Amino acid sequence: KKQYRIAVIPGDGIGKEVMPEGLRVLEVAAKKHGVSVHFDHFDFSSWDYYEKHGQMMPDDWKDKIGKHDAIYFGAVGWPAKIPDHVSLWGSLIKFRREFDQYVNLRPVRLMPGVPSPLANRKPGDIDFWVVRENTEGEYSSVGGRMFPDTDREFVTQQTVMTRVGVDRILKFAFDLAQSRPKKHLTSATKSNGISITMPYWDERVEAMAKKFPGVKWDKYHIDILTANFVLHPDWFDVVVGSNLFGDILSDLGPACTGTIGIAPSGNINPERNFPSVFEPVHGSAPDIAGQGIANPIGMIWSGAMMFEHLGEKAAGKSIVDAIERTLAERTLRTKDLGGNADTTACGKAVAEMV
Amino acid sequence: KKQYRIAVIPGDGIGKEVMPEGLRVLEVAAKKHGVSVHFDHFDFSSWDYYEKHGQMMPDDWKDKIGKHDAIYFGAVGWPAKIPDHVSLWGSLIKFRREFDQYVNLRPVRLMPGVPSPLANRKPGDIDFWVVRENTEGEYSSVGGRMFPDTDREFVTQQTVMTRVGVDRILKFAFDLAQSRPKKHLTSATKSNGISITMPYWDERVEAMAKKFPGVKWDKYHIDILTANFVLHPDWFDVVVGSNLFGDILSDLGPACTGTIGIAPSGNINPERNFPSVFEPVHGSAPDIAGQGIANPIGMIWSGAMMFEHLGEKAAGKSIVDAIERTLAERTLRTKDLGGNADTTACGKAVAEMV
Ligand SMILES: CC(C)[C@H](C(=O)O)[C@@H](O)C(=O)O
Ligand SMILES: CC(C)[C@H](C(=O)O)[C@@H](O)C(=O)O
Repeated sequence: KKQYRIAVIPGDGIGKEVMPEGLRVLEVAAKKHGVSVHFDHFDFSSWDYYEKHGQMMPDDWKDKIGKHDAIYFGAVGWPAKIPDHVSLWGSLIKFRREFDQYVNLRPVRLMPGVPSPLANRKPGDIDFWVVRENTEGEYSSVGGRMFPDTDREFVTQQTVMTRVGVDRILKFAFDLAQSRPKKHLTSATKSNGISITMPYWDERVEAMAKKFPGVKWDKYHIDILTANFVLHPDWFDVVVGSNLFGDILSDLGPACTGTIGIAPSGNINPERNFPSVFEPVHGSAPDIAGQGIANPIGMIWSGAMMFEHLGEKAAGKSIVDAIERTLAERTLRTKDLGGNADTTACGKAVAEMV
Repeated sequence: KKQYRIAVIPGDGIGKEVMPEGLRVLEVAAKKHGVSVHFDHFDFSSWDYYEKHGQMMPDDWKDKIGKHDAIYFGAVGWPAKIPDHVSLWGSLIKFRREFDQYVNLRPVRLMPGVPSPLANRKPGDIDFWVVRENTEGEYSSVGGRMFPDTDREFVTQQTVMTRVGVDRILKFAFDLAQSRPKKHLTSATKSNGISITMPYWDERVEAMAKKFPGVKWDKYHIDILTANFVLHPDWFDVVVGSNLFGDILSDLGPACTGTIGIAPSGNINPERNFPSVFEPVHGSAPDIAGQGIANPIGMIWSGAMMFEHLGEKAAGKSIVDAIERTLAERTLRTKDLGGNADTTACGKAVAEMV
C-alpha cells in the first residue's frame, strides 16, 4: 500500500501555531481510514529562514520538496520585516508558477453554527466553489516605468492570457461543474471595460462550453458579480475567474459565509507532475500571532482538501464532518467565532470528532 | 442670474422611462430654490439612433453637448442588438475620456426603510463615498493577440497608470476626505500580486498623504477590501481605487446597502473644462424595460448630485431629503423595494416631498 510523503512548511506567524493542529487531525484521520502518511518538515519559506540565510528558500528547494505527493503549507509573509515581493514572490507565488499549480480551488460554504454577515441565510443556502486561474493573467511580471520623477512618468503592466492557460483552467472548472448535482458554471468577466483580454476569456468560455453540453453556464461582469455574491449567493455552483478576479471572489465568498478565518485552499497541479500546495486562506496574521488563539480550522480543512486530492475521499470527508460538528458545538470554537477554546483545544476537539 | 444649460440624454431601455421622473423632480427643486435651468434633449447615444444612423452619435457630438454645464444621462446599452464595445465605447466611455471626466463618484449609503442584505445594519452605519479613477488604468485599449487559432495563441492588455492620472484622482479623494467629519481615506491596492502598477499606486498614495496631514489613511488589498465591505462597512469614509477596482467597489458597496437600483453616480471633470455626466448606476435593464416599473430613484438621486456639482447645494439636498422620505414611506416605492408604486407614481411622490 502506498505511503504518501507530505512536505510540511509551517512558515510564518500563526502558520506555525495552526500547523500542529492540522497535523494532529490528519494523523487521526489517516489512522482511522488506514491511510499511510509520512511527514517531512521544512523550516524555509519563512522570515526566520530569511533572517539566517538572506533568502526565502535554499537554492535546491525544488529537489527538497518537488518529489513529495503534496505540500502542507501554513502561511508566509511578515510585512513589517520583509517586503511582500520578497516573501510571497520568493515562495508561494514561486510554487504556483514553478510547480504549475494552475488551479486555485476554494470552497464557499455556509457552515452550521457560523454567524453569517448576510441576513437570513442558513447552512445549505450557500455552497459553491471558486476556481481561480493561478499562474498568469493579471499577475504577470511584464511591464515597467518610464520618465521617473517627472510629470511624464508612467507605469505599465501587462495582463497576459495564453490559449493553453485559459483553456486548461476552464476545462477544470467545467469538469468540476459537470460532477456536481446542479451542473452550473458561472464565468467572471469584464469584457465591456477590459476590452482585449476579457473578450478573449469570454470567447474561450464559449468554445469550452460546447464540449460540455450537460453544463448550464452564464457569465457576469465582475462588478455585478461581486454584488450578486452578497445579494444572491444561492445562485452559484462553480465560479471560474482569472487570477485577479478569482483572488477577489475567493476572499469575498468566504467573507459572505462568515468564514474567512476557517477557509481552506488548494493550489493544484491536476496532472500531478508536481506537488500541489494546500494552505489556509488566512495569512500569517502578525496582529494575533504568538497568543495561541488563532483558529486552526482553515489549516485542518486544507488538510481535508489535501486528502481528497490524493484520492483519500473517506479520510477527507471524515475531517470535514468533524469540522462541521465542532463548529456546531459553541464552546469548542475559537474566540473569533464567539467560542472559548484556544488553538490547541479547538484542534483537539476536531481530532476527537473525526 | 446664471441659467444652467443641461444636455439631456435618455439613451436606451429604462433610461427612457426614468428620465421624465428625474426631470420632474429637478424642475420642482429648481423652482423651489430659485435655480434657473434649461434642458436640451438629445436622442443619440442609443440603440434607436444607431439603427437609423449606423453610429452611436453624430460626428459633431462634441459641438452639440460640449458647452453645456452638465449632461444628464439615462442609460446606454442594448447587448442583444448592439455589442457593448460599440455602444459603451461609442458613448459613455468616450464621454469619460474626451471630456476628461477623471473622477467617478458614487455614494454608498444605507437609506432608511431600504432592506439591506447585511445582517444587523441600520441607517447611519454605512455612509461613505467611492472615488474611482475614470480614464486610464485597466481600461486601456493597448494590447493585442498573437498566433491566432494555434496552441501558441496569446493575448495581452496593458494597464497604464500615469503620474498625472494617478495624482489627480488621489488629490480629489484626499480633498473629499478632508472635507468630511471623519477625515479618513482608504486606498484599494493589490501590490502583493500586481507587482508593477499597484506598487506605483501605493507610492503615489504615500506621497499625496504627506500633503494632507489631517487625513488618516490606510490601504487594503482589493481581495480583503471586498471582504471588509461585507464584514465592516462601517470602517469606511472615502475609498479610492483604480478604474477597475473602483468599478468593482462601486457596485459592491451599493449592493451591501441594498440599493443597487437606486444608486447614483457622477462622471466628473473637476476643473469644469468639460461638462460632467450624471447617471444612475443601473443600466438599460432590457429585462424590465417597457413595463413602466423601473425604480426612478437612481436617476433622481443623480440629478441631486448634478445640482451639488453645479454649486446648488440647497436644491441638491432637498432632493436627497425627499428621496429619504419617499423610501421610508413603504407604498410610494417601486416593486423592487417591496412597494406598489410604478415609475411615474414614485417620481411624483418624490417631487411632492421636495
Ligand atoms: C458599462 C461599463 C463599461 C461601466 C464600467 O465598467 O465602467 C459600468 O460598469 C460602470 O460602472 O459605469
Ligand atoms: C498573498 C497574495 C499574493 C495572494 C494572492 O493574491 O494570490 C493571496 O491573496 C491569495 O489569495 O493566496
